[in-house]
Amino acid sequence: MEKERFQKQLDFILEIDKEKNIYRQNHLTGHVRPENDAEHAWHMALMIYLLKEYANETFDLAKAMMMALIHDIVEIDAGDTYAYDEENLKTQAEREEKAANRIFGLLPAEQKEELISLFYEFEEGKTPEARFAKTMDCFQPFLLNNANDGADWKAHKVKKQQVFKRQQRTEKGSTLIWEYIQTLIEENAKKGNLPDGEKD
Amino acid sequence: MEKERFQKQLDFILEIDKEKNIYRQNHLTGHVRPENDAEHAWHMALMIYLLKEYANETFDLAKAMMMALIHDIVEIDAGDTYAYDEENLKTQAEREEKAANRIFGLLPAEQKEELISLFYEFEEGKTPEARFAKTMDCFQPFLLNNANDGADWKAHKVKKQQVFKRQQRTEKGSTLIWEYIQTLIEENAKKGNLPDGEKD
Repeated sequence: MEKERFQKQLDFILEIDKEKNIYRQNHLTGHVRPENDAEHAWHMALMIYLLKEYANETFDLAKAMMMALIHDIVEIDAGDTYAYDEENLKTQAEREEKAANRIFGLLPAEQKEELISLFYEFEEGKTPEARFAKTMDCFQPFLLNNANDGADWKAHKVKKQQVFKRQQRTEKGSTLIWEYIQTLIEENAKKGNLPDGEKD
Repeated sequence: MEKERFQKQLDFILEIDKEKNIYRQNHLTGHVRPENDAEHAWHMALMIYLLKEYANETFDLAKAMMMALIHDIVEIDAGDTYAYDEENLKTQAEREEKAANRIFGLLPAEQKEELISLFYEFEEGKTPEARFAKTMDCFQPFLLNNANDGADWKAHKVKKQQVFKRQQRTEKGSTLIWEYIQTLIEENAKKGNLPDGEKD
């Protein structure tokens, strides 16, 4: 065991513990409290495994799960950017690039390159793994929010067409799941959880 | 898409959201609050990936990561059993078997069988994947506690030989990590974080 290398790995492992303190806008089922990024990533990785049969393309399971597990690590520095916060979405890429360099930079060089490459592959969404992982990234909080009768949408006054536009990207990873999401959007619209319109 | 099958998968996915409310005895770094099972599983899966070079044997990465991600789902019903709570350890297996049948039983039959089989493979610790996953199951809270200057050991009056005995099992997955753990146990003993002795 090369001590310096092992120490770098441990430094990274301890640093990412902070992801458990990055809270998102969506809540756990029962609306008990906001979810944090580590919990979201755990749930997403399991959903990738459990729902893989609905993916449009075959994909490498371990790779897609790793993408899910690491995709929000940058938020330790860059913070969570809410899906419907258009101002913060403008600066998101720049903030996250800086964060990726610092945090993954704690690792030994070749592991840094490996994880940064995986992170950008996810962000760019151009491979089967990235497409399905991104579908789960949208579907996971959608499912929790639907289970909570749309409480987060109501709190943020989110409109039906905003959710439609946001969730439409799930189609790239799974047309079947996107069809299901559309039925839930309609149900929530009927219940008054998602008023008609684009935004305030 | 077969609707009944998909609904079973979604029922399971929503059920395991409850794992985020199962709090453990160990704390996050900075001792800000106890860690929950979903966070622990996320951290453990990433550690399996990052530290795989120290495993005694080659192993299937996706399988070991899945073991990590699901190994505490039974605690939704069975609760967390603290590593040094000898009374509750006696009934742990029975409580967890009942929980495994109910919770994994929400899934379609073949996915139920798959996850239950993975769960028991982890518990039995007789394959390379299970051995390394179990090593990370011990090492992850140990690392956090060490970073917190042994705060959890001190709160529970845990003794040096108890930690030694508990952590000794990490050797089955990684002799290199077990060697490192021993140096940290000695350091903590010297600092007075782990008094000499077996138990009160």
